[in-house]
Amino acid sequence: MDALGRHVLIELWECNPAINQPESVRAAICQGVREIGATLLHVYVHQFSPQGVTGVATLAESHLALHSWPEHGYLAADVFTCGDQVDPLALVDVLKQWFEPGFVEVKELKRGRRPEVARCKVESMAEEMG
Amino acid sequence: MDALGRHVLIELWECNPAINQPESVRAAICQGVREIGATLLHVYVHQFSPQGVTGVATLAESHLALHSWPEHGYLAADVFTCGDQVDPLALVDVLKQWFEPGFVEVKELKRGRRPEVARCKVESMAEEMG
Repeated sequence: MDALGRHVLIELWECNPAINQPESVRAAICQGVREIGATLLHVYVHQFSPQGVTGVATLAESHLALHSWPEHGYLAADVFTCGDQVDPLALVDVLKQWFEPGFVEVKELKRGRRPEVARCKVESMAEEMG
Repeated sequence: MDALGRHVLIELWECNPAINQPESVRAAICQGVREIGATLLHVYVHQFSPQGVTGVATLAESHLALHSWPEHGYLAADVFTCGDQVDPLALVDVLKQWFEPGFVEVKELKRGRRPEVARCKVESMAEEMG
């Protein structure tokens, strides 16, 4: 493995109203942590007024976060993991089950590439992505 | 603004030993939140055995997370913000002050681009980045 971690960013659009329910966000996080094979250390969920929910889980393998904009039907997810015993991409199906998005986009970035590897790629990575 | 949020990923290498001190990680997070102009809702810090620290802050504007691998001198940071009142890139200087890295790499990704914008770019974004 040439990187210490994997960081998966997931954009979910046209989601159902459950993205505005803190108990659904918490349950999706807990199921997501199980499905990716990670270990939950702590979870914190906050409901904003008038709408929007944020849920952030600290994992033994790094973190998992969900942030919703119900007025746009949008949920932003990211999961950062280290180690070979977890599959962060398994979060995608869990979020589809809970929030029924019409459109999903997934990106995976390697984190913690050693500088001797990274320096060869600095120029291409310096471009603004996304 | 064509995106709802900004997600800044920061790779720090050749860091000082403070990346293995939970009180330093917590202090850096709290200072970072202030410097970027965000509002802290909750912070959780965990020290791993034999080494490594994870600190995750939930913000009114999304989240800020630090994960360290002292055995590699490596710290992974990410900060996700929404709104025009915050400057997530201000975190970079805070982390430099605390952890004195020899090599830093910063990427910024737009989050929550509306699908009609995003769909035009699906092909380029589908490439694995990083």
